[in-house]
Amino acid sequence: MTRVFKKFSGKLGLPHGADRDDTETKKEIIITIFDYDSKQCREKALDKVEESFPFKGSPTVTWINIEGIDPKIVQKIDDNFGVHPLVSEDIVISGQRPKMEDYGDYIFIVLRMIYFSVKFNEIIDEQTSLILGPNFVISFQEKEGDVFDPIRQRIREGKGRLRIMGADYLAYALLDAVVDNYYAILEKRGEDIEKLEDEIMAYPRNGIGQEIHQLKRDMNYLRKQIWPLREVINGLQRNESKLIKKQTAIYLRDVYDHTIQIIDTIESFRDMLSGLHDIYLSSISNKMNEIMRILTVFAVIFIPLTFIAGVYGMNFEFMPELKWRYGYFMVLGFMACVGIGMVVFFKKKHWL
Amino acid sequence: MTRVFKKFSGKLGLPHGADRDDTETKKEIIITIFDYDSKQCREKALDKVEESFPFKGSPTVTWINIEGIDPKIVQKIDDNFGVHPLVSEDIVISGQRPKMEDYGDYIFIVLRMIYFSVKFNEIIDEQTSLILGPNFVISFQEKEGDVFDPIRQRIREGKGRLRIMGADYLAYALLDAVVDNYYAILEKRGEDIEKLEDEIMAYPRNGIGQEIHQLKRDMNYLRKQIWPLREVINGLQRNESKLIKKQTAIYLRDVYDHTIQIIDTIESFRDMLSGLHDIYLSSISNKMNEIMRILTVFAVIFIPLTFIAGVYGMNFEFMPELKWRYGYFMVLGFMACVGIGMVVFFKKKHWL
Amino acid sequence: MTRVFKKFSGKLGLPHGADRDDTETKKEIIITIFDYDSKQCREKALDKVEESFPFKGSPTVTWINIEGIDPKIVQKIDDNFGVHPLVSEDIVISGQRPKMEDYGDYIFIVLRMIYFSVKFNEIIDEQTSLILGPNFVISFQEKEGDVFDPIRQRIREGKGRLRIMGADYLAYALLDAVVDNYYAILEKRGEDIEKLEDEIMAYPRNGIGQEIHQLKRDMNYLRKQIWPLREVINGLQRNESKLIKKQTAIYLRDVYDHTIQIIDTIESFRDMLSGLHDIYLSSISNKMNEIMRILTVFAVIFIPLTFIAGVYGMNFEFMPELKWRYGYFMVLGFMACVGIGMVVFFKKKHWL
Amino acid sequence: MTRVFKKFSGKLGLPHGADRDDTETKKEIIITIFDYDSKQCREKALDKVEESFPFKGSPTVTWINIEGIDPKIVQKIDDNFGVHPLVSEDIVISGQRPKMEDYGDYIFIVLRMIYFSVKFNEIIDEQTSLILGPNFVISFQEKEGDVFDPIRQRIREGKGRLRIMGADYLAYALLDAVVDNYYAILEKRGEDIEKLEDEIMAYPRNGIGQEIHQLKRDMNYLRKQIWPLREVINGLQRNESKLIKKQTAIYLRDVYDHTIQIIDTIESFRDMLSGLHDIYLSSISNKMNEIMRILTVFAVIFIPLTFIAGVYGMNFEFMPELKWRYGYFMVLGFMACVGIGMVVFFKKKHWL
Amino acid sequence: MTRVFKKFSGKLGLPHGADRDDTETKKEIIITIFDYDSKQCREKALDKVEESFPFKGSPTVTWINIEGIDPKIVQKIDDNFGVHPLVSEDIVISGQRPKMEDYGDYIFIVLRMIYFSVKFNEIIDEQTSLILGPNFVISFQEKEGDVFDPIRQRIREGKGRLRIMGADYLAYALLDAVVDNYYAILEKRGEDIEKLEDEIMAYPRNGIGQEIHQLKRDMNYLRKQIWPLREVINGLQRNESKLIKKQTAIYLRDVYDHTIQIIDTIESFRDMLSGLHDIYLSSISNKMNEIMRILTVFAVIFIPLTFIAGVYGMNFEFMPELKWRYGYFMVLGFMACVGIGMVVFFKKKHWL
Repeated sequence: MTRVFKKFSGKLGLPHGADRDDTETKKEIIITIFDYDSKQCREKALDKVEESFPFKGSPTVTWINIEGIDPKIVQKIDDNFGVHPLVSEDIVISGQRPKMEDYGDYIFIVLRMIYFSVKFNEIIDEQTSLILGPNFVISFQEKEGDVFDPIRQRIREGKGRLRIMGADYLAYALLDAVVDNYYAILEKRGEDIEKLEDEIMAYPRNGIGQEIHQLKRDMNYLRKQIWPLREVINGLQRNESKLIKKQTAIYLRDVYDHTIQIIDTIESFRDMLSGLHDIYLSSISNKMNEIMRILTVFAVIFIPLTFIAGVYGMNFEFMPELKWRYGYFMVLGFMACVGIGMVVFFKKKHWL
Repeated sequence: MTRVFKKFSGKLGLPHGADRDDTETKKEIIITIFDYDSKQCREKALDKVEESFPFKGSPTVTWINIEGIDPKIVQKIDDNFGVHPLVSEDIVISGQRPKMEDYGDYIFIVLRMIYFSVKFNEIIDEQTSLILGPNFVISFQEKEGDVFDPIRQRIREGKGRLRIMGADYLAYALLDAVVDNYYAILEKRGEDIEKLEDEIMAYPRNGIGQEIHQLKRDMNYLRKQIWPLREVINGLQRNESKLIKKQTAIYLRDVYDHTIQIIDTIESFRDMLSGLHDIYLSSISNKMNEIMRILTVFAVIFIPLTFIAGVYGMNFEFMPELKWRYGYFMVLGFMACVGIGMVVFFKKKHWL
Repeated sequence: MTRVFKKFSGKLGLPHGADRDDTETKKEIIITIFDYDSKQCREKALDKVEESFPFKGSPTVTWINIEGIDPKIVQKIDDNFGVHPLVSEDIVISGQRPKMEDYGDYIFIVLRMIYFSVKFNEIIDEQTSLILGPNFVISFQEKEGDVFDPIRQRIREGKGRLRIMGADYLAYALLDAVVDNYYAILEKRGEDIEKLEDEIMAYPRNGIGQEIHQLKRDMNYLRKQIWPLREVINGLQRNESKLIKKQTAIYLRDVYDHTIQIIDTIESFRDMLSGLHDIYLSSISNKMNEIMRILTVFAVIFIPLTFIAGVYGMNFEFMPELKWRYGYFMVLGFMACVGIGMVVFFKKKHWL
Repeated sequence: MTRVFKKFSGKLGLPHGADRDDTETKKEIIITIFDYDSKQCREKALDKVEESFPFKGSPTVTWINIEGIDPKIVQKIDDNFGVHPLVSEDIVISGQRPKMEDYGDYIFIVLRMIYFSVKFNEIIDEQTSLILGPNFVISFQEKEGDVFDPIRQRIREGKGRLRIMGADYLAYALLDAVVDNYYAILEKRGEDIEKLEDEIMAYPRNGIGQEIHQLKRDMNYLRKQIWPLREVINGLQRNESKLIKKQTAIYLRDVYDHTIQIIDTIESFRDMLSGLHDIYLSSISNKMNEIMRILTVFAVIFIPLTFIAGVYGMNFEFMPELKWRYGYFMVLGFMACVGIGMVVFFKKKHWL
Repeated sequence: MTRVFKKFSGKLGLPHGADRDDTETKKEIIITIFDYDSKQCREKALDKVEESFPFKGSPTVTWINIEGIDPKIVQKIDDNFGVHPLVSEDIVISGQRPKMEDYGDYIFIVLRMIYFSVKFNEIIDEQTSLILGPNFVISFQEKEGDVFDPIRQRIREGKGRLRIMGADYLAYALLDAVVDNYYAILEKRGEDIEKLEDEIMAYPRNGIGQEIHQLKRDMNYLRKQIWPLREVINGLQRNESKLIKKQTAIYLRDVYDHTIQIIDTIESFRDMLSGLHDIYLSSISNKMNEIMRILTVFAVIFIPLTFIAGVYGMNFEFMPELKWRYGYFMVLGFMACVGIGMVVFFKKKHWL
């Protein structure tokens, strides 16, 4: 999540859907399949994508999950399941805006999965594509590892509604898992913000401005991802398509509420960060002003004293005070009086 | 109302509506019931939630109020009254956005009750959920104590319209009580703002920036709560459902007007706080400028005088003035003239 | 118009429409009545509100004007004319947002009358409520004195359309009189703004920041009053009710245009005030910079001179210059050269 | 275009359409008439407004142009052509917001004509009203001189579509001429902005802040005039009225595109002016900072030198250096070293 | 892309569509034609525009591309293909806002082609107009060179869908090529922004403010071009016209997604530039503050030392310290203590 601009790697002006696999280095692709209904559940890791084709017409719910994007594999699956070439292209090219497209026979959803990976100990941010068909869901992920383990567990255990309801409920569960992980990220960032706030109140150290800037950028990035996601889920919920049943729509409304809440939280965080930035700037400026004020007052106190010393440093032949027995001590005393008087005056004026 | 971000305590990725009671410490739950029509009124404190079940089918209006959230109790009530599991989940999980959902047989409303509790001498901010059925209202509160005592009194005394009209009017009365208490909170904050303003005009002391920031944050928090509340009440008022009668809708329009007025006031307060912040900043900067200007002018006055003293402190053998009888006094006089002349000049220039 | 927040004096949580008269001190209530058609006109000051009741069913247009709000009197009138209790409540409680409510038999309008009272020599700002029935208009004002005298004159003289047309035209005329007075207030404020502008250009004296702030606040207040008024008048104009005839709607469109124009002017004023504030701040900062620059340059000129004097104030035994016949004058001359050289240099650099 | 607020000269509270001519000084009114169809064209300057009345029913297209506003003449024309009194009032009172009102038999349009008058060598800004009837257009202008000369020429010469098409095309041509002149004004202002930009880059002289402020104000004024004009033209284009033929609507769409383009340009200019202002402020502040930095560095270099001189100016009896043969020169040399060392240090630090 | 305001070169007030060719200097016009269906493809460079006329009625898809705008040629083509005079005018006059106009028989599209020309090694920004008819596309470009070469190649090679589908798909391909090049420009600008960011973090050199300003301006310019383009493509996609087939609309939705993504990126860039500007300003101000603080602390350390030297430079006859054997060294030692003490104090206070 360091740099906002993802470079658009497509060859400009080329026909869409053309081969692009040559620019990507070969990496391992993991394909797993779940095939279940309320009574039974089969789970399988596939070696070849072609093994998934027989599941197409089965009456059970089939979930094909592909981790790692290989254009050729995407092509094969899409050809088998009758998916439009533009969809394949969107799956392959990273940096898509979250969107939902209803092609009649299937619904295509793109969104970003952002989560903290315990395995890699860092925040993973990858594009995830879902194709929801009448009784199948195909999910494409850019990288290995995801937030779907609890769902896998629920399918295996057969508890709750997941095994009873159809492919649309599975798609809902996947969306919900992705959205729930935004909360975790936000909570993490919320703690960072509160820590920053405490620090600023205590002492405005130098790097804080940059940290606020970085957090702001993260918030802008998340906002950019979740604003369209809101429309995506709203679109699904209001969809007239037969692919989404009425009882699932209620659950989608729940995810919709969550996205709204996340957007609200992001907006709050943005407001807080702006506020923090203002406080930071003014506390820096206050600190600087304080230093300059004290230094200036200090310098000003010595100016008349140095002047007095200068006067009695003059070499006039006739300067009566110079001959006085206690002249020196009187002048020192006078200087002390002037100095103390000025300090008192400045204290009273709240300048020191 | 100290920290804006309420941590989302749900287990991420778990099926919705799953048991969550193990993370919450056991606390006392208070369940009270009012059952009334225009002729009679029964009031009762329940020991077990099951005692409320017989009231479900009664032709009288029943108000079940639960203070303290125990997921098991919520579950039991919801099962008995036929409420959707997602509703139970929303009641249990704190930090909901105010919303209204029409499930046909009943309407579900979530909002925040914010009020000054005399008992605890602090501002209480808790999530309140209402379920409005054909002839019952169930209200869930997170904490003990609420703003509904005047309504209880009115039910007991049987004065006014409350006993004559149905469950929808009771729901209206509860909403109205919650909204009215926002006025009280705003009035308190309004006084704080005016006090701050008077202080800034008098003397811009150091902590004011932070206080303005805190008030701004409170306003943002209230705004975040009341904006969606406005839609909630508008939704109720325009609702086609048979649950809300036409004569009650007029009263809901009145609450709607109040929320608009509260939003207006919050916006005014935000504008005023921004204005105050600007004034505060510029008065701090003016004060600093004033100090620096006076100090600099003061220093500048002594600079030529010290130079003159320095000149006559030179050790040249042939410096005629040094031998003059009144040279010393002439130089002192000249210095006084230069000093006074500069003061006059700076005064005339409005620099001092 | 000093303080924006009007305290909401209602008892929180009490049933709406309950007696509130005990908190208000007794003041004189003035009730006047106009009853006219195209042929005749009766004008009367009433001692008791009950004297107005017989006019209810008359075929002539009746205008009942009540100056000063006494909840009991409002109650009596509203009961007689069949007005909803919520309307009575809105009339009695000050600080309403301008609004229009169509109750079928009558239309209820609340707005603020803001005008310069010649009698009291100050700006009066009071809530005004209108109830427009089939052939009557009832107007409630908080204080004695209003902007309706020209309308009274036109009713008495019977010139123009007022006597010929119905109660809706009378309501229009009252609205128009209120809106026209906003122009007068704006014109006054416009003059204040232009005066401030001239002052800032000439010399940015100290209190101007506060004056700009005060004017901004006034503009915000007016805007808050007139934005909803715009909707009110638009609502009246587009109203399907039989209470407003088609030929009157054209006149309402004219008032609507005026409110839009007023809003435009307010926005212009706000822009101008923001611009003025920026100019004020930068002219203050320019002035400060100028002073500091000149003072610093002045100080810097003396610094090398003082250094030179310091050098020849050293007590080394062997300093050849000290023995030179014209050493003193040569040094003085050198100092003058250095000083003049620096002045010339700074002048050329535009630093002085 | 100096002052934004046009004083509203109407008598407040008076019936609309009442005589207002007594406040205006008598000025010459110029009335000209064009009466044409595809075959012939009559052009005439009228002495009395009554001479235009016979043209009302003629089958040819009639264009009556009145330069200078005399309420009596407006009244006479409007009475003859059956125009609503509110229209007459809007024509007479200056400072109207651009608007379009469809009265069924005729369409009333108000807009501002802003153009550079070669005759008076200044920018003229006047209110222009058009009344478009079935086969006539009446145009009212506040001042002598307009932008319609090319249209007059085209009517006389009979080239192009103007003579063939009806009154609606004439109205379009007039609107188009007005809008085209906004381009000319914008082009002029664009040149001013570019000149300012070049100046700021070169040297941020003092008055530039004010000039930017003035240009911003002009842009705000233009924007205020053209935003509603956009709606006016859009309204005309989408109008269902029989007064505007379908083939003319295509031309109106073209004018509409022009207004959008002008709004775009104004917004660009506003952005540019904001950017320029920021650059101006930061270049002023940079310049000031530069001066202060150099001066401070200069002063700081002399401070230790003066201190050294002060040390050897002390009068202790036993100061061995004072007796050294080359003590003086060694000290001078040491001073030079210190001074040069500091200059080198500051140079390296980029402080000088 | 240096100056935002393109001067509107039309003669003000003239009839639209009049001859304008006399102000433009003669330049070479390149006309090429592609005529193809799924089986064959003819490519030809025309000497005279009239050679393209016979292709009008052919059943094959015809693409006429004109590089360089000559009003006479535009006129001839438009007359032959039955295009409205206003369209010809829009093609000839540069500086149009991107727009789409459906004239029934044909659709007219204007947009800006912005691309990096390898041939001229600079960013080319030219107005491009498309006329899409039943089986022809006419494209007008202001300058030689374009982004259409990959499309030409695809037509020649006959691979992909281009040769199979109709004129609407060709228009889509042209639009897509233009939009794809915006990505390239944005990517370039994105690299500039990242480079600037790195530079600011390292050292805030002087010209960066101007570079940020320039980039902001470029972004504003692109935004101004692409916002309306979004509406253009949306309009095409939702168009009911028979000219655009349903299977092409899916491809247009893809281009639409791209424009949204580009707008998103532009907004991100604008946010980043604003953030960078803030960081730049505060890092400049920090740097300045740092310098001033260090210099001031340095000066303040010497002030009491110089004062002490001044005291022992006084010429009083009775100053016991002056006679002490080690007075001088004691004073020097004392001075060193004071100096070191102050340095330590300032270090501890983080002022140095």
